[in-house]
Amino acid sequence: MAKDMNISLLLDFYGELLTEKQREAVEFYYYDDLSLGEIAANLGISRQGVRDNIKRAETVLFEMEEKLQLAKKFGSVKKELETVRKFVDIINKHNAKIYHSDDINKNIDIILASLEKVNNEI
Amino acid sequence: MAKDMNISLLLDFYGELLTEKQREAVEFYYYDDLSLGEIAANLGISRQGVRDNIKRAETVLFEMEEKLQLAKKFGSVKKELETVRKFVDIINKHNAKIYHSDDINKNIDIILASLEKVNNEI
Repeated sequence: MAKDMNISLLLDFYGELLTEKQREAVEFYYYDDLSLGEIAANLGISRQGVRDNIKRAETVLFEMEEKLQLAKKFGSVKKELETVRKFVDIINKHNAKIYHSDDINKNIDIILASLEKVNNEI
Repeated sequence: MAKDMNISLLLDFYGELLTEKQREAVEFYYYDDLSLGEIAANLGISRQGVRDNIKRAETVLFEMEEKLQLAKKFGSVKKELETVRKFVDIINKHNAKIYHSDDINKNIDIILASLEKVNNEI
């Protein structure tokens, strides 16, 4: 069974839609990197049961993303915000080096705090 | 039947999860502001059928948001980015008035373009 690392990302978005068993199995597998045998022992079900739960969970997660595209949307937002952050940093350094403006400094601090909050959110 | 204007927002996120009839009914009702009678005529179903489809659609949308909280998450990101935008504008005006730095200007243009892209995305 090949591991698809996108699953970890999709779990953040759609994990709440899985059954408890599906979620436990897939989290052990993708977050904790346990083997099917270890997960089977943890959950008290067969290895085949673990495999079925993981497969089913993956299908749900992929179908949700295919329909809603929210991980993709968040991904492009994240990318743009890295650009914003990068160019705010450039202005910041520019200001520190040439203009020494406290006002610009203060505003940049507020911007960086907001970007940080967004980063924690997405 | 009371209109819940949050529905329009939730439709943007989770509309793809509705059946075609549910989606058509709820879009006519919330986007186009048609009456139940008008929607019934458009869809060739009874007024009660329209009502049922809208109720069912609302339930699906609310349940999805209750589980996934993605509209809420996007909402707070949007609010923070308004703050970012506001303080970038302040730096911009400040620069135009006092420092006249082409470099800062250029960087601000890039930042504003990225924020605009994000705004179109969310």
